Amino acid sequence: MLEIALIGAGRIGQIHGRNIAAHPGAKLRWVTDVNAEAAGKLASALGAQSGTDARKAIEDPAVKAVAICSSTDTHAEMIELAAKAGKAIFCEKPIDLSLERVDQCLATVRKAGVTMMIGFNRRFDASFAALHEGVRSGKIGKLETLIVTSRDPGPPPIGYIKVSGGLFRDMMIHDFDIVSWILGEMPTEVYATASNLVDPEIGKAGDIDTAMVVLKTKSGAIAQISNSRRAVYGYDQRIEAFGSKGMLQAGNQVANTVTFSGEPGVVGEKPLHFFLERYDAAYRTELQHFIDCVLGKAKPATSIEDGRNALALAEAAVQSLKSGVPVKV
Amino acid sequence: MLEIALIGAGRIGQIHGRNIAAHPGAKLRWVTDVNAEAAGKLASALGAQSGTDARKAIEDPAVKAVAICSSTDTHAEMIELAAKAGKAIFCEKPIDLSLERVDQCLATVRKAGVTMMIGFNRRFDASFAALHEGVRSGKIGKLETLIVTSRDPGPPPIGYIKVSGGLFRDMMIHDFDIVSWILGEMPTEVYATASNLVDPEIGKAGDIDTAMVVLKTKSGAIAQISNSRRAVYGYDQRIEAFGSKGMLQAGNQVANTVTFSGEPGVVGEKPLHFFLERYDAAYRTELQHFIDCVLGKAKPATSIEDGRNALALAEAAVQSLKSGVPVKV
Amino acid sequence: MLEIALIGAGRIGQIHGRNIAAHPGAKLRWVTDVNAEAAGKLASALGAQSGTDARKAIEDPAVKAVAICSSTDTHAEMIELAAKAGKAIFCEKPIDLSLERVDQCLATVRKAGVTMMIGFNRRFDASFAALHEGVRSGKIGKLETLIVTSRDPGPPPIGYIKVSGGLFRDMMIHDFDIVSWILGEMPTEVYATASNLVDPEIGKAGDIDTAMVVLKTKSGAIAQISNSRRAVYGYDQRIEAFGSKGMLQAGNQVANTVTFSGEPGVVGEKPLHFFLERYDAAYRTELQHFIDCVLGKAKPATSIEDGRNALALAEAAVQSLKSGVPVKV
Amino acid sequence: MLEIALIGAGRIGQIHGRNIAAHPGAKLRWVTDVNAEAAGKLASALGAQSGTDARKAIEDPAVKAVAICSSTDTHAEMIELAAKAGKAIFCEKPIDLSLERVDQCLATVRKAGVTMMIGFNRRFDASFAALHEGVRSGKIGKLETLIVTSRDPGPPPIGYIKVSGGLFRDMMIHDFDIVSWILGEMPTEVYATASNLVDPEIGKAGDIDTAMVVLKTKSGAIAQISNSRRAVYGYDQRIEAFGSKGMLQAGNQVANTVTFSGEPGVVGEKPLHFFLERYDAAYRTELQHFIDCVLGKAKPATSIEDGRNALALAEAAVQSLKSGVPVKV
Repeated sequence: MLEIALIGAGRIGQIHGRNIAAHPGAKLRWVTDVNAEAAGKLASALGAQSGTDARKAIEDPAVKAVAICSSTDTHAEMIELAAKAGKAIFCEKPIDLSLERVDQCLATVRKAGVTMMIGFNRRFDASFAALHEGVRSGKIGKLETLIVTSRDPGPPPIGYIKVSGGLFRDMMIHDFDIVSWILGEMPTEVYATASNLVDPEIGKAGDIDTAMVVLKTKSGAIAQISNSRRAVYGYDQRIEAFGSKGMLQAGNQVANTVTFSGEPGVVGEKPLHFFLERYDAAYRTELQHFIDCVLGKAKPATSIEDGRNALALAEAAVQSLKSGVPVKV
Repeated sequence: MLEIALIGAGRIGQIHGRNIAAHPGAKLRWVTDVNAEAAGKLASALGAQSGTDARKAIEDPAVKAVAICSSTDTHAEMIELAAKAGKAIFCEKPIDLSLERVDQCLATVRKAGVTMMIGFNRRFDASFAALHEGVRSGKIGKLETLIVTSRDPGPPPIGYIKVSGGLFRDMMIHDFDIVSWILGEMPTEVYATASNLVDPEIGKAGDIDTAMVVLKTKSGAIAQISNSRRAVYGYDQRIEAFGSKGMLQAGNQVANTVTFSGEPGVVGEKPLHFFLERYDAAYRTELQHFIDCVLGKAKPATSIEDGRNALALAEAAVQSLKSGVPVKV
Repeated sequence: MLEIALIGAGRIGQIHGRNIAAHPGAKLRWVTDVNAEAAGKLASALGAQSGTDARKAIEDPAVKAVAICSSTDTHAEMIELAAKAGKAIFCEKPIDLSLERVDQCLATVRKAGVTMMIGFNRRFDASFAALHEGVRSGKIGKLETLIVTSRDPGPPPIGYIKVSGGLFRDMMIHDFDIVSWILGEMPTEVYATASNLVDPEIGKAGDIDTAMVVLKTKSGAIAQISNSRRAVYGYDQRIEAFGSKGMLQAGNQVANTVTFSGEPGVVGEKPLHFFLERYDAAYRTELQHFIDCVLGKAKPATSIEDGRNALALAEAAVQSLKSGVPVKV
Repeated sequence: MLEIALIGAGRIGQIHGRNIAAHPGAKLRWVTDVNAEAAGKLASALGAQSGTDARKAIEDPAVKAVAICSSTDTHAEMIELAAKAGKAIFCEKPIDLSLERVDQCLATVRKAGVTMMIGFNRRFDASFAALHEGVRSGKIGKLETLIVTSRDPGPPPIGYIKVSGGLFRDMMIHDFDIVSWILGEMPTEVYATASNLVDPEIGKAGDIDTAMVVLKTKSGAIAQISNSRRAVYGYDQRIEAFGSKGMLQAGNQVANTVTFSGEPGVVGEKPLHFFLERYDAAYRTELQHFIDCVLGKAKPATSIEDGRNALALAEAAVQSLKSGVPVKV
């Protein structure tokens, strides 16, 4: 039984905590959070110990793996604590908002030789995984154009936006990872354009809420990502890959397959509301993969280098938006 | 240039009249109708002569083919006039409401040796034709189950229902033809059940408006037809063919492919409203086929025997509904 | 913590056993099976005791509820044992192949006053539940026509067919339940027709493999069920409800939403392969509902009367098929 | 009866010629082409006079309108001839490859006060028109993101590519028009990136075959166009408009609605093969609109200014591709 410490009892921490507790091969030993009440409540529901001292949990000899779900600004420190304690690491994205800091972590983890995996949950979505497999297996021949659509149902609180690092580092970072993953190569040029259309408060906070990014690779493949912080019809997460032998499209998921034909037309369900619903199964698959990695049965599909690459693309997008011209990566 | 006389200037007569006038290989020479004004108006718009005397038009030596679109009770007489005058015949369904009278017509047409085709327009619908071709070419192996859905957007006037011969002879006759055509064999047993749910006036007129019929063949294939005189979302015309190697489904057509994703869900267009819209292209293809038949380039895909068979199935359904038990054909 | 005894460690027993073990409010105390090895293996994986003596498990005072997943011929006896021991009962369908025996059970359960629920899992499918809710809430006005399609990917072993009670009692019994549930009234007339098209061995065993049944209610609504023991494209489970204000359709589920556009056309995933995949979530919801019933939070959505009614319709279908005419219920 | 001269008997000239000949309110009086045989063949089939002298046809007093379908390098001259002769003008896109020359034409046409319409056929497509109507009527609130996909089934001959003005002026010009039309405002910034992936010969001819362009407007709306000269599954023409209240998507059209469920999955038809099939109805609607404009019943939906604007965007894309940075319009 693999004993795991969970650092952070917020929204995403609760998901991973529950999945760990329900996993037949894992045991949730610790839940820590800066908010003692939040940690205590989750730990109690899942039969774990709780506390506010992450270091104590991480260094507990019974703990073999650490799931880092605390706020972004603490990730790097937790990674270093865990690496030095020789624990396997699962860390939510992004690793840090500074590429330099990420590189320090990368060095520490490599030196420690511990297993580390980044929480790019979308790679574990059944539809995205099937599209990736189709592209990689040559089903559409040479990949030429990749179009990624990613829209949240609504914006996060302004308070979050102020500390998130901005849309590119916080939200599009998932899409940057998806693009590199499906392309099978790191883009070499990034052009970003963006607007503040959803909520003027976001603009006042220095961020944008509607963005379009074009990426190009050495081989000439062109990718495009469009993001919006608001989609009234739900969480819109789609990928279209076009190549010399055809096209693969991965669509949204719905709660049920019922359609109504009546006066207003033929009406189907909206996409599942948000990431908790859409990626519910993906989070379970992701955790299973992490456990397999810790047990030596698999190698992390989402490595610390992947986390670094996605952040590098986000940085390039930030610079392109500022300068108004494409940026080399 | 094939000169054609059109008998009947009502709704379906206007469709065929316009298609004849627009056809590069045909000329509409006559439009006749018991209503002189209706005939005159259509003839004038299409550059034809008009009158109330169908015989005169049929026997005009320049006329080589006759399109019979008058009321059902006149079909048999027109067929006989045209057959005796040696003209090729296109006749709207049903030939007559009496099987005996149909058989007389059949004998007359055979004796005269003229080309005759029944207006089973649905066979010329691109989707139904593709499904038929798929079944006949063995794409789903041995055909085992056939499910035909056919619902009108709304009931015809009560006056029409009183003289139509009832739902089985007037409306489901198309589906009986479709079923025999796709099965590739004449069903040998018919069970019908029905209700009066749409409009009590239809019940008072001695008819039903909601019906379900099960047909069985010697080979064990089972077909099912469901009809309703009302569907608030439009004209609902679908076929599902299931066999040992798979399933083919032919769906409705829409005016455009636009979908709206918003608060109410994902909303697509309703099916095209009624037969004029849905079978617009089919009517043109049907006329082309008739002209090809007259010119000796093709044999009628919808023969007078097909018209007889469909009526025989309708008769069996009427009897089954009366008796409450299945009827052998 | 609700302690449950599982009777039967076969395919369906394993599903329920795993769901009980994973449920935060339940504990799997016993697994029994006539096959000691099967019981032991499942019990060991799920942390339960095992044995071959169902009575011992049922009468264990710690056990508050019993899940009966053994072979059909033992259901009635298990129900009676559990009822007499005052335990809540979950029983897989059918209760028994004899209506008389079902009525005995019904009397015993009523007398004992215990909670009892039948495993009509399809009612807990998200799509079917949404369609049911739509119909019951009046979204399509008055329900007029109901069309249920239910095809298995392939036939069960001939040995199973010989003892199953036949297609109507074993397979279509689910659809009979669905039809009554959505109609909201018990049909009063049943007409069945069927063929042996899939495998001649099924015919030799005295059963049919392709069936179509028409049911009618007092209110004039007409339902139709079609079954096949084989569908090469997977498990085909669909419902179409048509009424005065529109139509609701519940379709199949797919493993992912990816489509491929290429030389062969636009290709989507096949339906999920069989009931284990399609109803995976429904089984969990069903168990949750059972536990809620035992805890007094809900009343069984699938009562023992529902089990009786479905069997009565199956009996009527068997008689109709034999006699060739519709049968009153 | 409106008499029309057709200039150019090539692929697109044949379409317009046939539609004019079949139109009840129009008569095709002339067909001219530099290739006398081509002109003669089409004229003879459609009952018109033929010749190689466009001026003669344009200046024929019976001719009230001119349809210019000759090669792009002759458009400007034909427009000027027709404008000076006081004839209504329908001209295929692009007007000319030089913006300066287009402006001269514009001035001449304005001075002459004749009706002029550009052949942006896609605006008359039922799906695109419905999407446009939805956006303009506020169905999705404020338009924020517009995504246009436009892929040809295969590249034109290299000879054509050499004189076409390149992908942006020849192919994407349609999409530039669509974008401006749906945005309801002219974009102010254009960024283009492109590759040569389909055929090296295209690269040798100095052109690209895979392109992605991002356009931005004053209001902050962002549009994106992706083009490919080859799509093995057919002509791929889609639009997605996203706004504050939802999303509208216009998809491809198929020859029929049949789907096959079998071993390979659920297979539907490919998109209609190419523009002749996809825009067949749009060409008829477009001609009807032109005739309405000539008769004073409507104002050209696709004005000469629209033609100029689309070319200006193409020019900007060409410059952006060369310079590697966004270009202001």
